[in-house]
Amino acid sequence: MEVKKLVIVGGVAGGASAAAKARRCSEDVEIIMYEKGPDISYANCGLPYYLSGVIQHREDLLITTAEFFRHRFRVDARPRTEVIQIDRPRKRVVAKNLNTGQLEEETYDRLILAPGSHPIMPPVAGIDLPFVYTLKTLEDTDRIFAYLKEKEPRRAVVVGGGLIGVEAMENLALKGLDTTVVELAPQLLTFLDWELAEKVRWHVRNKGVNLCLSEGLKSVEKHNGTGLVRTDKDREIPADLVLVAVGIRPNVDLARDAGLEIGSSGGIKVNEFMQTSDPDIFAAGDCIETTNLVTNKPVLTPMGSAANKEGRAAGANALGRRIAIKGFTGTIIVKVFDLTVAKTGLSEDEAVAEGFSPLVLYVQPGHHAGYFPGSKPLSIKTVSERDSGRLLGAQVIGEEGVDKRIDVFATAIYHQMSLEDLLNLDLAYAPPYSAAKDPVIVAGAVGQNYYQGDWNPISPRELKDKMQSGEPLTLIDVRTKLELTKVGPIPGAVHIPIDLLRRRLQNLDPEKETILYCAQGLRSYLGNRILAMNSFKKVRTLSGGLDTWTYETEPPTADSAP
Amino acid sequence: MEVKKLVIVGGVAGGASAAAKARRCSEDVEIIMYEKGPDISYANCGLPYYLSGVIQHREDLLITTAEFFRHRFRVDARPRTEVIQIDRPRKRVVAKNLNTGQLEEETYDRLILAPGSHPIMPPVAGIDLPFVYTLKTLEDTDRIFAYLKEKEPRRAVVVGGGLIGVEAMENLALKGLDTTVVELAPQLLTFLDWELAEKVRWHVRNKGVNLCLSEGLKSVEKHNGTGLVRTDKDREIPADLVLVAVGIRPNVDLARDAGLEIGSSGGIKVNEFMQTSDPDIFAAGDCIETTNLVTNKPVLTPMGSAANKEGRAAGANALGRRIAIKGFTGTIIVKVFDLTVAKTGLSEDEAVAEGFSPLVLYVQPGHHAGYFPGSKPLSIKTVSERDSGRLLGAQVIGEEGVDKRIDVFATAIYHQMSLEDLLNLDLAYAPPYSAAKDPVIVAGAVGQNYYQGDWNPISPRELKDKMQSGEPLTLIDVRTKLELTKVGPIPGAVHIPIDLLRRRLQNLDPEKETILYCAQGLRSYLGNRILAMNSFKKVRTLSGGLDTWTYETEPPTADSAP
Repeated sequence: MEVKKLVIVGGVAGGASAAAKARRCSEDVEIIMYEKGPDISYANCGLPYYLSGVIQHREDLLITTAEFFRHRFRVDARPRTEVIQIDRPRKRVVAKNLNTGQLEEETYDRLILAPGSHPIMPPVAGIDLPFVYTLKTLEDTDRIFAYLKEKEPRRAVVVGGGLIGVEAMENLALKGLDTTVVELAPQLLTFLDWELAEKVRWHVRNKGVNLCLSEGLKSVEKHNGTGLVRTDKDREIPADLVLVAVGIRPNVDLARDAGLEIGSSGGIKVNEFMQTSDPDIFAAGDCIETTNLVTNKPVLTPMGSAANKEGRAAGANALGRRIAIKGFTGTIIVKVFDLTVAKTGLSEDEAVAEGFSPLVLYVQPGHHAGYFPGSKPLSIKTVSERDSGRLLGAQVIGEEGVDKRIDVFATAIYHQMSLEDLLNLDLAYAPPYSAAKDPVIVAGAVGQNYYQGDWNPISPRELKDKMQSGEPLTLIDVRTKLELTKVGPIPGAVHIPIDLLRRRLQNLDPEKETILYCAQGLRSYLGNRILAMNSFKKVRTLSGGLDTWTYETEPPTADSAP
Repeated sequence: MEVKKLVIVGGVAGGASAAAKARRCSEDVEIIMYEKGPDISYANCGLPYYLSGVIQHREDLLITTAEFFRHRFRVDARPRTEVIQIDRPRKRVVAKNLNTGQLEEETYDRLILAPGSHPIMPPVAGIDLPFVYTLKTLEDTDRIFAYLKEKEPRRAVVVGGGLIGVEAMENLALKGLDTTVVELAPQLLTFLDWELAEKVRWHVRNKGVNLCLSEGLKSVEKHNGTGLVRTDKDREIPADLVLVAVGIRPNVDLARDAGLEIGSSGGIKVNEFMQTSDPDIFAAGDCIETTNLVTNKPVLTPMGSAANKEGRAAGANALGRRIAIKGFTGTIIVKVFDLTVAKTGLSEDEAVAEGFSPLVLYVQPGHHAGYFPGSKPLSIKTVSERDSGRLLGAQVIGEEGVDKRIDVFATAIYHQMSLEDLLNLDLAYAPPYSAAKDPVIVAGAVGQNYYQGDWNPISPRELKDKMQSGEPLTLIDVRTKLELTKVGPIPGAVHIPIDLLRRRLQNLDPEKETILYCAQGLRSYLGNRILAMNSFKKVRTLSGGLDTWTYETEPPTADSAP
C-alpha cells in the first residue's frame, strides 16, 4: 500500500523526529503533526537548568518551530491541537483545537503516536494550590519562571527525589532558594543501590539542601498567606513553592481507547519496528514499552535519547522501512551539584530481584593519572553474574570522567561482555584523560582476580550482616597508623599495617575466618593473597574498603527540615 | 616445575607490574628485578608535563621506589644494574652494576623481559651536541629541566611531530619557548588521516608554534655559541634546545642475542600469554610485538596502558597462570593545547593499505546538548567496511568529550560492531554530558542512512579528485546567503538554500551527477533526499561538508620558521 497520508500525534521529541524522518523517506507523503502544547520540539531535558539561569535564554530551549517544520520538511504542524480519538475502522483521528474548541477530523494511511507522558500528581489535599508546580513542559517552566521572578519565593519543597526531582532540587538551590526534598523512599535516586545513594545524600546535604527521606507527602496547605508541605510523619515544611516530581506515566489513554495493546509496564506495546498491535499505527517516545536488554523484559524508558531513536525509526517504518530499535540497557546519568551519578544495566538490588546471583565489586580509582593535576576519585560498583562472569550492570559516581566510564560499560553490556574481558579493552590513555590502568580496566582486573581464585570479596552489605550475626571472625585493618587517626577502624578490627602482616602471621588463627580491609581494597587484596598463601583457610577482603563501608553502614536518618 | 626464582629485566611499567603481580601469585618465589636506570616505576607519560610545570613536583612522577618494592612485595629491586646477557642453556643472566662496573650472575627458573624501548637518533652531524635531548626517561627529563632552569633557552626545535614530539612541543611552548617542530611527513601525528591532521596543524599554528613539515633533519650545528637546526631543505632554524622525538625502537638486542624469536614488527615475539619462543622466558611492554585486533596483524603498541596489562599477565603467567592479552585496537589519544586528538582502529589510509574498501563518513555534532552552555563541536570520522558495515576505525578531534567517544568506539571495535548498530547503544544522556542524539549515535545513524540507500556520500578526497578530473557535475551549496558571506562556496558551486531547493528543481538537470554540500552535511543530506525522490539519477552529498572540505583542500605548506 502506498502511504499517502501520515498523521503524527505529538510534536516534541518522538513526534518531531518521526516527522522529519518521514519526510526524508518520502517527498510525496502528506504529513500532519498534532501537538497539544503550543511548542514544537523544545528541549525538555534543559528545563530545570533554565530555572537557575544555567541556561540563560528561553529561546535556547526552542529547538525548532512549527514554521520551520512547514518550510523545511513540509510538515503541517498543528500546535495547540489535541487528538482526542482514533477511529481505527475508518482510519481517522478526531482532534480538538485548544484555542477555539473546534473539532476536526483527519484520515490517515499510517498513524504515529508520540503523545509522551504526564507527571503523576499524588491525590492529596492542596495539590491544586497555585504555588504547586510540575516541571514537564515548557509551559510548566514558564509558569515557575514567572513565579520565581514575580514572587521571589525563598523556600522550595521538591516532592520526589528521582531524576527530575534531583535536577529541580539542584537548580532551585543554585537559584538561591532554601530547598527541601521530600522522598518516600529511604534514599534519593532509587535506581542506585543504597550505599551509592548514600554518597549522593552526603553530597546534597553538604550543599545545604534539606532531605526528608522515608517520608511521603500528606498535604499542601496555606495558612495566613504562608504555604507549607505536611509529610506523612506530620512534619510541617514551610514552602513558598512546591514542585511535584514523583514520577511520570505514559500517555496511553488514546491508544487504549482505540483498543491498542498496552504492555505490562504500562506503555503502548510495540514490536522492534515501533509498530503497535495495529499494523498501521506506530508509536514512539515516553508512551511506549521498550525492552531491557539485560533482562529482556518490558520496561518504560522515558528518556529523550530513546524518544529520538524511536521517533526516527517510527517515521521511517510507517513509510515501509525496517529500522529496528533493539532496546535499552537502562543507562541513566544525572548531575547532582559537583557530582555526576550514572548507572547502566542492573543495580545489585535489581539483579537479585531478577533472580541473578550477583558478584558485587567496588573500585575507587582516580579519573585520570594521579600525578596529573586535578585527578578526582571515581566510585565504581560492578554487578556481574557470579557463575558466568557476564557484566550485568555498573554504577559510577564522581566529579569527573563518570559519563565516559558509564558509556564504556553501557557498550560492554550491550555486547554481553564479561567483567573479566573488560581488561582487554584498549581504552585511550594519556595522563590528562585516564590512568595507565583506566578505571574500567581496573574493574576488569579486580574481576579477573576473583575468577582466578585470588581473592574472595565480601561486600559491605555481607560483612555488616555477618558482624550482626555474631559469627566468629578476625577482622584486620591493614592501613597505616596515620590513616587510623583520620578515619577510625571498624569496631572489633585488629590493626596490622600491610607491610607488617607477614611478620605477624603467627599471632593470627589460620583456621578462623579472616576478613581484611583497607581504605579502598588494594592493600587488603595483597593481604588476602599473603594469608591465603600462608595456609589461612578462609580469607576474604572487603570490596570497596572503608570508603564504601562508611556509606553502607550509616543509618538512614531523616534529616530535620527547617 | 615449581618456580622458585623469577628474574625480571626492567623495572618501569611492564617490569614493575610483573613483579607486583608475581608476588601476589606466590609468597615463596624469589623475585629479582633489574633496572638499568636509577628509578623504579616512574610516570613516563607524565614527563612532558613536568617540563612546563603542569606537573609541579618531581616527586609526583615517582610512582614507587626500590625500597617500597622490597618492603611491600619482597622484590629484590636492583636499580642502575643492566642485564647484558642471557645464558639460556644454563638459565642465568649476567648483569652489570652501572655504578661500580661489576658483573654479577643470577640464575632463574623463569625470566621476564621488560627492557622497554629507546628513542631513535637520526645519524646526522651534531646529534651529540650538548643541547640536543631526548625525552624518554626521568633522567632525560631531569637534564632538560636543569638546562631550562640554568640556561633559560628561548628557542626550541622539536624534531618529530608524533605523540611525544607533539606533547613536548605543547609543553615547551607553554613554558614560553619559541617552539618549532620539524617533521619529515607532510603532517603532524601521522596516525591521523590528512584532513584531520590539518585541523591539528591549524590549531598548533594558532598557538604560535612554527611548523616545518615535509622537512627532515639534516644537522644540528653550533656557531659562535648559537645553536641551529638545519633541515634537508637547508632551512636554518635557530635553536637553544633541540628535542629529538622521531620515534622509538623496542629494546630487543638482549633477546635477539639470546636467540629468542623477534617478530616482523621488530618486537619480541610472544603468544597471548606473553611467552616468548623460550617457554621459560616471558616478555612485556614496549619490547614486545602485539596483535592489532582489527587486522589481526603483528604491531608494536608502545603504550603505558599496554605495558601495565602485559606486565601483569607476564608476572602471573611466569608463575603458571594463564592470563591472555588478546591484543589492541590501536587506541591513541593526545592533548594538543586546547584540542584532544584521538583515534582507534584504522585510519582511512590504513584501511586502504590493508586492502579494505572503506566507507568514510564525517559527523560534526556538539559534545553535549547545544542549548546547554559550553557545547563544543567534535569532528568525527568513521571508517567502516563498505560491504559488511563493520566499523574499522574512528578518529575524533575536539575540545571536550573526545576521550569518551573514542573509548566507546574502541569498545565497539573490540566487539566487531557494525557502524549501523552504534545507533542501538544506550549512551548516557543528560544535557551537561551529551545530546539527545549522542555524537556516536549520530555517526551510527548517518551510517544507517547509507546502508538504507538514503544517500551516497562523497568524501572530500573523492570530490577533490572528481573536480580535478573535470567530470561534468552540478555542485550545489544549500547553505543560507549569510553563511556564504562568511565562508565562501566551493568554486563552481550553484547556491540554492535548502528551503528553496524544491522550488528550483526545474532549473537543474536530473540526468547530470549532482553533489550537494552545506556546512556539515545535515541540510545537504535532506537535499540529497529531495533530489533522489524527484528522479535525479545520481545525487551525492559531501560528507563532513565545508568544515572538512576546507581542511582537505588546503595545500600542505611548509610554514616559514623564524
